[in-house]
Amino acid sequence: MSRTEHSHHAKPTELDPVIKRSRRYKKRNLLTSPGTLTYIGPDIELKTKIRRIQFNDHLFRNEPVKSLSECRPAENGEPVITWLDVDGIHETGLIEKLGKLYDLHPLLLEDIVNTEHKPKLEIYDDGYLFLTLKMLHVETESPICITSEHVSFVLGEKYLLSFQEELTDDIFTPVLNRLEASVGKTRRNGPDYLLFALMDVVVDNYFIVLEKLGDSLDYTEDQVIRGSEDLSLKELYALKRELTMARRQIWPLRDMINQLIREDNALIEKEAIPYYRDLYDHIMQVLDTIDSYRELLASLADVHLSTISNRMNSVMKTLTVFSAIFMPLTFIVGVYGMNFDYMPELKMRYGYFYVWGLMAVVTVGMIFYFKSKKWT
Amino acid sequence: MSRTEHSHHAKPTELDPVIKRSRRYKKRNLLTSPGTLTYIGPDIELKTKIRRIQFNDHLFRNEPVKSLSECRPAENGEPVITWLDVDGIHETGLIEKLGKLYDLHPLLLEDIVNTEHKPKLEIYDDGYLFLTLKMLHVETESPICITSEHVSFVLGEKYLLSFQEELTDDIFTPVLNRLEASVGKTRRNGPDYLLFALMDVVVDNYFIVLEKLGDSLDYTEDQVIRGSEDLSLKELYALKRELTMARRQIWPLRDMINQLIREDNALIEKEAIPYYRDLYDHIMQVLDTIDSYRELLASLADVHLSTISNRMNSVMKTLTVFSAIFMPLTFIVGVYGMNFDYMPELKMRYGYFYVWGLMAVVTVGMIFYFKSKKWT
Amino acid sequence: MSRTEHSHHAKPTELDPVIKRSRRYKKRNLLTSPGTLTYIGPDIELKTKIRRIQFNDHLFRNEPVKSLSECRPAENGEPVITWLDVDGIHETGLIEKLGKLYDLHPLLLEDIVNTEHKPKLEIYDDGYLFLTLKMLHVETESPICITSEHVSFVLGEKYLLSFQEELTDDIFTPVLNRLEASVGKTRRNGPDYLLFALMDVVVDNYFIVLEKLGDSLDYTEDQVIRGSEDLSLKELYALKRELTMARRQIWPLRDMINQLIREDNALIEKEAIPYYRDLYDHIMQVLDTIDSYRELLASLADVHLSTISNRMNSVMKTLTVFSAIFMPLTFIVGVYGMNFDYMPELKMRYGYFYVWGLMAVVTVGMIFYFKSKKWT
Amino acid sequence: MSRTEHSHHAKPTELDPVIKRSRRYKKRNLLTSPGTLTYIGPDIELKTKIRRIQFNDHLFRNEPVKSLSECRPAENGEPVITWLDVDGIHETGLIEKLGKLYDLHPLLLEDIVNTEHKPKLEIYDDGYLFLTLKMLHVETESPICITSEHVSFVLGEKYLLSFQEELTDDIFTPVLNRLEASVGKTRRNGPDYLLFALMDVVVDNYFIVLEKLGDSLDYTEDQVIRGSEDLSLKELYALKRELTMARRQIWPLRDMINQLIREDNALIEKEAIPYYRDLYDHIMQVLDTIDSYRELLASLADVHLSTISNRMNSVMKTLTVFSAIFMPLTFIVGVYGMNFDYMPELKMRYGYFYVWGLMAVVTVGMIFYFKSKKWT
Amino acid sequence: MSRTEHSHHAKPTELDPVIKRSRRYKKRNLLTSPGTLTYIGPDIELKTKIRRIQFNDHLFRNEPVKSLSECRPAENGEPVITWLDVDGIHETGLIEKLGKLYDLHPLLLEDIVNTEHKPKLEIYDDGYLFLTLKMLHVETESPICITSEHVSFVLGEKYLLSFQEELTDDIFTPVLNRLEASVGKTRRNGPDYLLFALMDVVVDNYFIVLEKLGDSLDYTEDQVIRGSEDLSLKELYALKRELTMARRQIWPLRDMINQLIREDNALIEKEAIPYYRDLYDHIMQVLDTIDSYRELLASLADVHLSTISNRMNSVMKTLTVFSAIFMPLTFIVGVYGMNFDYMPELKMRYGYFYVWGLMAVVTVGMIFYFKSKKWT
Repeated sequence: MSRTEHSHHAKPTELDPVIKRSRRYKKRNLLTSPGTLTYIGPDIELKTKIRRIQFNDHLFRNEPVKSLSECRPAENGEPVITWLDVDGIHETGLIEKLGKLYDLHPLLLEDIVNTEHKPKLEIYDDGYLFLTLKMLHVETESPICITSEHVSFVLGEKYLLSFQEELTDDIFTPVLNRLEASVGKTRRNGPDYLLFALMDVVVDNYFIVLEKLGDSLDYTEDQVIRGSEDLSLKELYALKRELTMARRQIWPLRDMINQLIREDNALIEKEAIPYYRDLYDHIMQVLDTIDSYRELLASLADVHLSTISNRMNSVMKTLTVFSAIFMPLTFIVGVYGMNFDYMPELKMRYGYFYVWGLMAVVTVGMIFYFKSKKWT
Repeated sequence: MSRTEHSHHAKPTELDPVIKRSRRYKKRNLLTSPGTLTYIGPDIELKTKIRRIQFNDHLFRNEPVKSLSECRPAENGEPVITWLDVDGIHETGLIEKLGKLYDLHPLLLEDIVNTEHKPKLEIYDDGYLFLTLKMLHVETESPICITSEHVSFVLGEKYLLSFQEELTDDIFTPVLNRLEASVGKTRRNGPDYLLFALMDVVVDNYFIVLEKLGDSLDYTEDQVIRGSEDLSLKELYALKRELTMARRQIWPLRDMINQLIREDNALIEKEAIPYYRDLYDHIMQVLDTIDSYRELLASLADVHLSTISNRMNSVMKTLTVFSAIFMPLTFIVGVYGMNFDYMPELKMRYGYFYVWGLMAVVTVGMIFYFKSKKWT
Repeated sequence: MSRTEHSHHAKPTELDPVIKRSRRYKKRNLLTSPGTLTYIGPDIELKTKIRRIQFNDHLFRNEPVKSLSECRPAENGEPVITWLDVDGIHETGLIEKLGKLYDLHPLLLEDIVNTEHKPKLEIYDDGYLFLTLKMLHVETESPICITSEHVSFVLGEKYLLSFQEELTDDIFTPVLNRLEASVGKTRRNGPDYLLFALMDVVVDNYFIVLEKLGDSLDYTEDQVIRGSEDLSLKELYALKRELTMARRQIWPLRDMINQLIREDNALIEKEAIPYYRDLYDHIMQVLDTIDSYRELLASLADVHLSTISNRMNSVMKTLTVFSAIFMPLTFIVGVYGMNFDYMPELKMRYGYFYVWGLMAVVTVGMIFYFKSKKWT
Repeated sequence: MSRTEHSHHAKPTELDPVIKRSRRYKKRNLLTSPGTLTYIGPDIELKTKIRRIQFNDHLFRNEPVKSLSECRPAENGEPVITWLDVDGIHETGLIEKLGKLYDLHPLLLEDIVNTEHKPKLEIYDDGYLFLTLKMLHVETESPICITSEHVSFVLGEKYLLSFQEELTDDIFTPVLNRLEASVGKTRRNGPDYLLFALMDVVVDNYFIVLEKLGDSLDYTEDQVIRGSEDLSLKELYALKRELTMARRQIWPLRDMINQLIREDNALIEKEAIPYYRDLYDHIMQVLDTIDSYRELLASLADVHLSTISNRMNSVMKTLTVFSAIFMPLTFIVGVYGMNFDYMPELKMRYGYFYVWGLMAVVTVGMIFYFKSKKWT
Repeated sequence: MSRTEHSHHAKPTELDPVIKRSRRYKKRNLLTSPGTLTYIGPDIELKTKIRRIQFNDHLFRNEPVKSLSECRPAENGEPVITWLDVDGIHETGLIEKLGKLYDLHPLLLEDIVNTEHKPKLEIYDDGYLFLTLKMLHVETESPICITSEHVSFVLGEKYLLSFQEELTDDIFTPVLNRLEASVGKTRRNGPDYLLFALMDVVVDNYFIVLEKLGDSLDYTEDQVIRGSEDLSLKELYALKRELTMARRQIWPLRDMINQLIREDNALIEKEAIPYYRDLYDHIMQVLDTIDSYRELLASLADVHLSTISNRMNSVMKTLTVFSAIFMPLTFIVGVYGMNFDYMPELKMRYGYFYVWGLMAVVTVGMIFYFKSKKWT
């Protein structure tokens, strides 16, 4: 993938540990009426890739779609499940036409292409549900930077539409392969189980992201505990920002999956419920781990600040010890640098050596004093 | 608009990054009974501008209102929707008369002119609902300062009244233009959809405010991370204050829109619900973003404080290194400035140069010592 | 009023910005059984003043009560509303007798005289409700000090009893005047509307207190932002304490009014509900403002601490610059103060001036060094 | 009481303001099965004292119990109420036998003797309820130390059992005296009112503890505000720890009393409900006050830290002023201590006095400089 | 046990108080379908030990299982309760086969071997429930390090399966012994009571862990209060991390046990409910104690930081006192080291002694000045 390579070229230097995160807002022209599709993600030149997979117990067809008419839903009679895997959401015209083929609400289409939309679940009365969430990718590891990819699903009785940004390779390839190889339960079940399998890929990926975040936290903890001079709160800040971002993207999933489980829903069959419950458990575990990371990070920041204070203390002690030893000595030698006519000590035979002795006594006394205070 | 120009004149200097925010309180004369209208916003000399728009599928009339009698609701038989766009709420007498024409509750009128009232929704049994919210404007960008404009709506079965402060141009012009050009769904639908369209303008504006806040946060983050000397916590404080203010103004909308959706409401038709749900999503996204900004700001303040501490550390180290090098040297030259009669070194041929050698050794030793401690 | 004058005498000096807040506890003699009345407020010598107001649409009677028998509730047949305005709650015997006349629960009477009791609402099955809240007064403005006055109401079907501490003038005078002048709706309505009107006076007073708190916050904000030396966290603390106190006194009102609105209550008629809802909105606005004040105050404390740190930084820099300039110079002059027999420089014709040149170079070099570090 | 005396002997010195709080855990032998009684409180040699009080409207009997058989519940027919006041819970065998006499659940008995058990309410189907709470005592006042005493009640239809630790005198003596003197409602009512009266004693005691805590807070506040040098965060910490502890012991009472009021409970008669509601109010007031103390304490800690910082600032300023005045002077006298052959100033008649003049100018200049910076 | 020994060898040195906690993630191969068992715990070579215990009132059989067929559930007719105690969960094949014998859901089996799974309760419609929790062990005491062991239960009508990691000895030995010795109620009751007894062992162990944490906290508190130099925030951090970890592992138990009690559950009989309620109380007590430890720890960190600041203050004072005494003295001796031709004092007979007198006066003055400021 060209993009990951690019990120290697633009690898951030050590001097600038915090990568600028570009914010993308929903900037809709105020003159357009609501329901007008506006793609606001990064510019991409590749054309949208669509793949139509049809399968049931016996059958498996997987063809790239060339004209929009091939995307048409299967006739009612045909006992196959259709999965339309749309890779790229920047061609809003195409999305709009697809929406009309499947008779989807225009606001739903707007959410598919709005890459900044929060994860959400919407159950429509017309017999389909809409679900959008974020795939997370670790873009760079040190300093860690996580990017999100906007993924949406429309689940009908006999079909599943999946939409993803054209940022990375198709993230659903593993499920596709499993489907083709007829491994597991994926093919024996309906589109509800397929939706679970695809979401499971996304959530499993969260664990990978979590592991990288954990590695980054371990490294930072190590730096803080060893009192490394190079570390600054900026790195803790960068890590915290990524955790906050990841949490915001994952948090809404909790309620969404819960709603899917609780609500009596014609689209999710009873057999699929335990799998969705399992998914819910995994999401809870991800959120729980993120929260404990955030808590540890906050404590680490305190430790770091106290380390700085301690270091300052030690600098001050060094200064004080030096001053307290050399100030009296300098004073003593100053005394015998005075030019008074009558200074008895100056005439003494061993006066010079007596002064050295005095200074030795003062120095040793000072050192003992500071030793007793445990300053050296 | 005269006001925005004014704010350019009074542009805050860089030395005073925090603009004083004037607080306006509901100061009701204790002798007046509740329900007495009291306008407490800034003094404005312009006269209230009222515009009556009447429309249905075929028809569109838009006339400025000259006498109050033109504001009268349409007869029951007439199949048009009336939108009364009132620009200016400082003439309380006029508002009161309007209220009587439409038979509105006096406490409702009080809330229309009370520019400090929090956003709220009130559903009256008499077949109309009242809704008030805040339009936010970015008054100055650096330091960022957000002002709010009090906007109220009364939605009846066949009419919509909108009230706004006479601070800026009419903020609803885009909707008016769309209505006239017959673009979008606005004209085919009832006053409930019109209300949505007007609120959508306000919420879309929140995203613009959010973007400016985000720019300001980016700039501040950049300053903090680069450890800029010029930055002070005051700027973080100013930014936080604006975020807090914006959040307070937007937060109640969440419950208001939710209530509109959930409650079985004769005034909001079923077809409009998805649009209100969309609005709700956008409000949630705004609030969510504000919260993450606030969280980042709090972390930035910590980073800033640790930067100050680190800088102090480095100042102290400089002082200590200087003291630790020059104190011993000054002591040594002091020794040979003593006037003892008998000091053997003074008589030595190269004594002076030996002393220079000694001092060089001491200096180099000190430098090595501090290098080993990584202080220089 | 004698008390306010007194507080002028005892005006706190600037050196002691935090006035000691005297805490008053419910100290009940352990031997008395519950329900025994104990007044714990400040000692007051004035006698309790009672005023009986009777009114309906046509009629208005307002007489000071001389003997307890005049306090008797009106006969059932008489179509008047009785308001008994009791000013002073320190004569527990009198309160007890009043309670018997109106057949009130002894625990209710205990709460009327317990000036430390939190605001609460209690609906009794016997056809009356009890409500107690706090009137807030600004006692001193700089430093701000808020005192609370214990106010209680008993609302029956045909009567309203109001009790207040004998601290200030009768706070209900405005309502009394309005009632007499027949201004507003107060006289056309029942005791439920009268209760609203009285509580509205209390809540309106909260806005006045809020304004003073806001002024105090503005002043403090100004001090903090200008980095005033005189300010200390103590003033922030005093302000925070008053805010905390005010919040504690007002917070329970939220639930109380809400309960009055929601619960199907024979004592509050349907027509009065919108007024209570209005009251609820005002209370929410007060609480909301207090919360935002508290939040700003917390941020101000952080700004103040960082200002102190910055000031320390600047002190340290001054010290370091002085040391770094004069230590090398003192060392140099020390060198040529040595008494070695052979020191070639001492014999040089312009040696003295060369040394001055050397010292000038060192000084200029140091100044450039610190300029480059932006320390001066 | 021997214990209070003891605590006078062991009075903590001023050097160690934080008394070690001994933690007592439920250490059950892993081999014993649940329901086995284990007393874990301090070792006590006194024998358990049991008192049987029987009363109704006419009758009052109060006898110390000598053999267990006297503890037997009254026959069903007899119209008396039995109160068994058990003072001492360390003899588990005795408790176990009592439990069998009254047919109590073994887990209930376990909770009576487990002095570390949290306050809880348990309503048993067999017609009795179990309630355990903590009596708080102020053990030492400065530094404040609060100890808790484990108190349990079993309320049956016709009897009340009360259990307390043998730490202090019988805390229920006031109620007993009131009962004997036939003062108040205690004797006319059933065991539910008696339970209220006993709990009221405990809660009234909380107010006494609260007052001592308030005194301690006042004293600390005073120290912090006056910037006393002697104070350290340790004292704030000790105070906070006691507040935290008290809050943990009282907090569960809130839900317990609430449950007693709400639930339709055969054991608590309707007439007693207002008294329990009164108790609930008092508990809320205690908790509310504790929370505000904790909040103030947190602010005080901040004030204290800023005081330390300010003091450091002032130390640094002193040092800097001294250095900035004496370093230039020392440099000047060093210049004229040099031994150059040709130094014109040394030959001048009034050179020495000119130098004094120069030094006076430098000193005065420095003092003005620091005065302008407000450092002195 | 080999592992505990190992931990003695790897005992952390005092220089590195924070042991690296290894994080274990659920890393599932993306190609495997959900429900595939993956053991992710540490590698263990021991074979899984299984023990089949069968018992009822009269009978007790306890045999190690040699072939899987012995694990088969008892026939329906046989009136015995089977407890299968599986010690070791790393052999996923074996777990899978066991799951088939008892007809368990594959996702349940996945949770048994996923040692990172959070505690959870799942009630299956097929007449069994699944429950997983964490046994906590104190691995090292100073610095404290807690490890968790993954424990799972499957409760059927007539059987109980228990699974534990092969890390320590069988933790359920005490219950087994009690069962064999027919002590207590364990044998007279069904598998629901047995489940309680086993969970009770786990929860009792929490108290032991809590005690060690309390000891560690006591030690740290002592260090902080005595202002020990050796202590750093790192130790507080390590302690906090362990508390956070323990809390996360125990917290979910609260809801789990609550759900067991509330829900009408065929598997838990009414007689067992009080025991589960007792368990719930103990869990609440553990959580409550952990929370109060965390709160104290946070306060201790503040105390520690203020101790550091105070120490810095005292260092600075020492430096300032030294400087303020010796700088004037050095200046004075410098004055009389000047070489002016005309310096009257130098000619005075006792000039030298006068200077000593002057210096004594300056020194004493300084000392008095600093004494008055309480700096020495």
